[in-house]
Amino acid sequence: MIPLHPKVVALGGGHGLYASLSALRTVTDDLTAVVTVADDGGSSGRLRRELGVLPPGDLRMALAALCGDDEWGKTWSEVVQHRFRSEGELHGHAVGNLLIVALWELLGDPVKGLEWVGRLLGAHGRVLPMASVPLDIQAEVELDGRITTIRGQVACALTPGRVRSISLLPSDPPACPQAVTAIEEADWVVFGPGSWFTSVLPHLKVPALARALHTTRAKRLVILNLAPQPGETDGFSPEKHLEVLREHAPDLSVDAVIADCGVVGDQLALEKAAASMGGRLVLADVGASDGSARHDGPRLAAVLDEIFHGKR
Amino acid sequence: MIPLHPKVVALGGGHGLYASLSALRTVTDDLTAVVTVADDGGSSGRLRRELGVLPPGDLRMALAALCGDDEWGKTWSEVVQHRFRSEGELHGHAVGNLLIVALWELLGDPVKGLEWVGRLLGAHGRVLPMASVPLDIQAEVELDGRITTIRGQVACALTPGRVRSISLLPSDPPACPQAVTAIEEADWVVFGPGSWFTSVLPHLKVPALARALHTTRAKRLVILNLAPQPGETDGFSPEKHLEVLREHAPDLSVDAVIADCGVVGDQLALEKAAASMGGRLVLADVGASDGSARHDGPRLAAVLDEIFHGKR
Repeated sequence: MIPLHPKVVALGGGHGLYASLSALRTVTDDLTAVVTVADDGGSSGRLRRELGVLPPGDLRMALAALCGDDEWGKTWSEVVQHRFRSEGELHGHAVGNLLIVALWELLGDPVKGLEWVGRLLGAHGRVLPMASVPLDIQAEVELDGRITTIRGQVACALTPGRVRSISLLPSDPPACPQAVTAIEEADWVVFGPGSWFTSVLPHLKVPALARALHTTRAKRLVILNLAPQPGETDGFSPEKHLEVLREHAPDLSVDAVIADCGVVGDQLALEKAAASMGGRLVLADVGASDGSARHDGPRLAAVLDEIFHGKR
Repeated sequence: MIPLHPKVVALGGGHGLYASLSALRTVTDDLTAVVTVADDGGSSGRLRRELGVLPPGDLRMALAALCGDDEWGKTWSEVVQHRFRSEGELHGHAVGNLLIVALWELLGDPVKGLEWVGRLLGAHGRVLPMASVPLDIQAEVELDGRITTIRGQVACALTPGRVRSISLLPSDPPACPQAVTAIEEADWVVFGPGSWFTSVLPHLKVPALARALHTTRAKRLVILNLAPQPGETDGFSPEKHLEVLREHAPDLSVDAVIADCGVVGDQLALEKAAASMGGRLVLADVGASDGSARHDGPRLAAVLDEIFHGKR
């Protein structure tokens, strides 16, 4: 029997995860986000360096995506998303990052701290870090015909070279136990959209999380990006994204791959790439109508709802 | 008829106001704090210099004093009171200061921003700034037989000289309109305890607030400090505190003056000082039992309750 509210776990970080959560929150009441903690730039990077905490930015953005619909939820969501602008020391810090870090310092438990921010926002779902320690992404990059190794999410996002693969430092980080359980008990696990190497693939490099992603009874869904990302995935076709996913997790099977009609060049190649991972391609009109490379929430939600309920 | 819950307005700032509010919240359901906005030190001083806002620290502390009794109120109170400790740029900032400033930037209205923090904390009362613009305290100080002028709350608190009087810069600041109305409609207005020159007297130097304090139909109550403050009121007797109050507001009458039994040296002199302002002296055991110069919340509350209900 197909549950009315499937248990859904969304993996990712940043704006991509914000997009998937904005759609998923309207489709199910049982939603958990498992978020990358490898950011080393901006407000998050400064906080992890100054206070030795997990980078909070992607967690904050996921919480904001789940905020309550009422005046209370919307106001506190605006507060946590607010950034100070000045000539001074607070410039660029997001208020929610500071609030999350304060709760971590007070409660001594990343998951409990995020629960309190979730309660503040009236969040429609849970937000968990993928690991219990701050991580660094290390990437093999091809530049001028040579392979080099670069370190850090910012460096990966900005490299003029072509990223070939990523790994994590430390290489065997402790997964967040609640995230492992959520994946094990899920009906659906959703990969992407988002920065492919720095937000979508890192989960597969946390050993306990990777095991759970392989052994879960959940179905696996990939939401492809609407455009390659300059630097990180410059020139990548949709099928190339799937190939890279497969290279990072050769034994992972997927059930469905959502791609926007407008961005598919070679449909046959994409269908083959999906099939090689055991999945079917779902072509749909999920891009924002303003022509930006963002997903349209309601359109994406409609497709997800059909897939979750066996109608597509 | 004496109302069950008198409308009470408490004036002050810092730890002194925290003490009066901690007692008053148990005595009435209709409580408004009107708080100094002249701090130029610490986290507040940095925020007003960096972002051009009112110094939020005394407002934050007043809100924390009013927080809800349940787990929700207590946890968020701990969060807003939490201070970052590091070797970096956030060191010393109180989280609640950052939250208040963010709400001010978002909502564009100091009173609305404080209302939202009050709602977050489940606060038992309202907290208002005494003025709508940041203020500086200017003090006439006697040092080595000469009178000099110093500027800023920190300078006043730390001066080795003897403070004689204070004034404000700007000298004619706009009062917070809601604070004026609260004073006009109050049953009781409470001055002190607190830093006499920098937290208790400044309200009398905001013209519209001073007018309301003189013309209100409310009774006026002074809670004297338990000890002189090194620097600011070094060597001041209880009656000297009243004399200074009278010098700053010669036409202000008071109805009652609460002094702790243990700190009164010359009871007759203190009774005379109270009487010269039209008030009676209420001697009571209101100090903390640990011998610190802090008021004991329940003891102070019991005396306040008796005074408000005509039993003392």
